[in-house]
Amino acid sequence: MSDRYASFAHTGPGRALVRRLGLPDPPRLRRHRPGDPLIHGPVRLDAAPGGRLVDPVGKILTVAGVEVADRTAAAPPDQGPYGALVYDATGITDSTGLRALFDFFHPLARALRPSGRVIVLGTPPELCASPREATAQRALEGLTRSIGKEFGRGSTAQLVLVAPGAERAVESTLRFLLSGRSAYVSGQVVRITPAEVPEVDWERPLAGRIALVTGAARGIGAKVAEVLADDGAHVVALDVPAAGDALAEVANTVGGTAVQLDLTAPEAAHRLADHLADRHGRVDIVVHNAGITRDRTLGRMTSDWWDAVLEVNLVGQERINDVLLDRDLLPTGGRLVGVSSIAGIAGNRGQTNYATSKAGVIGLVHSMAAPLAARGITVNAVAPGFIETRMTAKMPVMLREAGRRMNSMAQGGLPVDVAQTIAWFASPGSAGVTGNVVRVCGQSLLGA
Amino acid sequence: MSDRYASFAHTGPGRALVRRLGLPDPPRLRRHRPGDPLIHGPVRLDAAPGGRLVDPVGKILTVAGVEVADRTAAAPPDQGPYGALVYDATGITDSTGLRALFDFFHPLARALRPSGRVIVLGTPPELCASPREATAQRALEGLTRSIGKEFGRGSTAQLVLVAPGAERAVESTLRFLLSGRSAYVSGQVVRITPAEVPEVDWERPLAGRIALVTGAARGIGAKVAEVLADDGAHVVALDVPAAGDALAEVANTVGGTAVQLDLTAPEAAHRLADHLADRHGRVDIVVHNAGITRDRTLGRMTSDWWDAVLEVNLVGQERINDVLLDRDLLPTGGRLVGVSSIAGIAGNRGQTNYATSKAGVIGLVHSMAAPLAARGITVNAVAPGFIETRMTAKMPVMLREAGRRMNSMAQGGLPVDVAQTIAWFASPGSAGVTGNVVRVCGQSLLGA
Repeated sequence: MSDRYASFAHTGPGRALVRRLGLPDPPRLRRHRPGDPLIHGPVRLDAAPGGRLVDPVGKILTVAGVEVADRTAAAPPDQGPYGALVYDATGITDSTGLRALFDFFHPLARALRPSGRVIVLGTPPELCASPREATAQRALEGLTRSIGKEFGRGSTAQLVLVAPGAERAVESTLRFLLSGRSAYVSGQVVRITPAEVPEVDWERPLAGRIALVTGAARGIGAKVAEVLADDGAHVVALDVPAAGDALAEVANTVGGTAVQLDLTAPEAAHRLADHLADRHGRVDIVVHNAGITRDRTLGRMTSDWWDAVLEVNLVGQERINDVLLDRDLLPTGGRLVGVSSIAGIAGNRGQTNYATSKAGVIGLVHSMAAPLAARGITVNAVAPGFIETRMTAKMPVMLREAGRRMNSMAQGGLPVDVAQTIAWFASPGSAGVTGNVVRVCGQSLLGA
Repeated sequence: MSDRYASFAHTGPGRALVRRLGLPDPPRLRRHRPGDPLIHGPVRLDAAPGGRLVDPVGKILTVAGVEVADRTAAAPPDQGPYGALVYDATGITDSTGLRALFDFFHPLARALRPSGRVIVLGTPPELCASPREATAQRALEGLTRSIGKEFGRGSTAQLVLVAPGAERAVESTLRFLLSGRSAYVSGQVVRITPAEVPEVDWERPLAGRIALVTGAARGIGAKVAEVLADDGAHVVALDVPAAGDALAEVANTVGGTAVQLDLTAPEAAHRLADHLADRHGRVDIVVHNAGITRDRTLGRMTSDWWDAVLEVNLVGQERINDVLLDRDLLPTGGRLVGVSSIAGIAGNRGQTNYATSKAGVIGLVHSMAAPLAARGITVNAVAPGFIETRMTAKMPVMLREAGRRMNSMAQGGLPVDVAQTIAWFASPGSAGVTGNVVRVCGQSLLGA
């Protein structure tokens, strides 16, 4: 689970060697620790003329205690270094207006701190007033993805598309993307829809919430349980009976409860629902983290392996959702979170079963967003790239090194990076975040 | 422009060495030659129960002279080898039904000829009757992309999403995907919308059509001119005055006309429109192939370089479209085709300007599809990956080899592969093909 190359590259002699030979240079990523400020250094905020987000975003940042250097400052310190560059591009209504992006970013391209943040704010193209505006807004994605690959030193770049009327629903997303919680998230497009956002305690946003985490005994699931508990949730940690000891330890550590249950068993969904109904009367957050692989090329695969992967990774999750919704156990403000995968986006050799199931998770997010919105529930998924776990530690060395280095961070992510992304989806502040599939992949080069 | 590694790997000793060392093994791709049958070998056609496409597709294939081995055959020759496997998955209305995919493809995984074809037919998720159906249909993408990476030997795999009511509009797409014209297209998702499709002469589908090709003096543009002329079009080949000699040669070769015009000049769009109006009274097909790069990281880029790339690759094209549409020079049945890029999808270091412009081309396709559909005009784009041209021949050797090998074909594509994809969009048979961005990249691993 350790990246010995990165550890070496962070030593004095290692750093010298890496530079001399032009080897991958994995930066130390800023990750969130309790008590950390949202971001180090001032945030430079500006807008193309007519932007509708610069004012509400400026207020959000100021209230959050962030030092904002905006265009109205007498002498904006152009040399930085800035913690983040935030640009409201919603005023660009035509491709000729894209020049404003150059004018903002060109002089600031070297004024960003290590692990700095670039956030471009736009309008979802399908909600634009004209084809010309939609074209220009879609072009923003080419810019942010290129900046993510270019700026380096652990910086990230995202495009946040804010629907008209959703201006005030953007706070949880801004906080996540600016903070060290999003260390391994880059090159993503996030969509915000209009929603009533309640008052949020940003220190313990999940206080009083019941969170179910499946596959919680180890790896990413155990870390999800930990992060949600840190954020204040009561965690119901679920795993198969065979993982009982590890599961009990996780539940104890996070002060939650353990449920041993094989979700592929008949009536398992109803037994789970019974447990949640009896103990808590509801479940606010459901994280479908349980997943398995059974890798084999299609010609050599058995039907058992196909069925097992589809059942655990997709079919069983739909069944649980249906039972929880039918029995009204997921209340308004509820959160469904799935775990997809880069293989679900791009496909993978030897993983027809896994990729089909994980593409289905994307389908579930997209197809359930509208019906669940009517009930005040959001649904989103993470799509992890190369994450340092016991599973990836067992990969052949060349594959493992390729996976680790072929991304904008030149390193693998950690389970906590996936867990923090899930915690952002789970936050009551994220009422306007639904229908999103966000990669936690350090902007992996691998894609569709 | 030559791939010496592939040439060597195709020799007897080369093949032995490649296999012994586990080196990339670029297959010889089947490419279309005049007089070729649509596909070699029988096509195996089957459907999940309730599929609405298996019957119309069976009829289309039979009329096209293809030997169809379907489930109704007394003893379908399961051992193949087949030229293509075509599976109608529209009957899958729930993720539990995905098992039908395994049942069809598992016994056939090794029954495909070299350069074989896999086509899965589905329903666009957003048009499905239920979230469960939409989830299952979205899952198909994980399967086809994995098969594209797994089956090898020059085979391709695609997902064709056919809207209800568009069953008969699928023919041009089936013909393209089955034929050697789509040699370097794999892992793609194509959407077909309902449309009136005229009678098509499949030997010379563009007979009588006027096709404008910009940037036609060399490279991909010259090949586009050639392929469209082969398909029967009168080609108006346009390029800057400095490329006059090469342009004249292309125009002569294809029996078309040459137009020397710098499209960035004031009034150039109107001068072009005047020319088309005077000579032809209209233009049926517009291929916006002209494009430039001016690569530099954003901090080192000049505003001139930013502006030049945006102007040529995006802004100027929008201006031309507007003038042609305003002056009613693009009639019903018209075809707009853009050229995007993998950099426009995924972003690229040192190409903020280029990636922004090429992402804008994607935006143009998506935003113009609906308004143009109302006029009976389609708009689509190709997104080339690594194509063997004078431009890629100049790349540093390591970058060039990485670009060539990191795809399901282990080789670069040829300009003709891009040109044939454009010709498919241009066909009168493709009236139901609009709003698509199709990568011509051999299923490059590089993505978003």
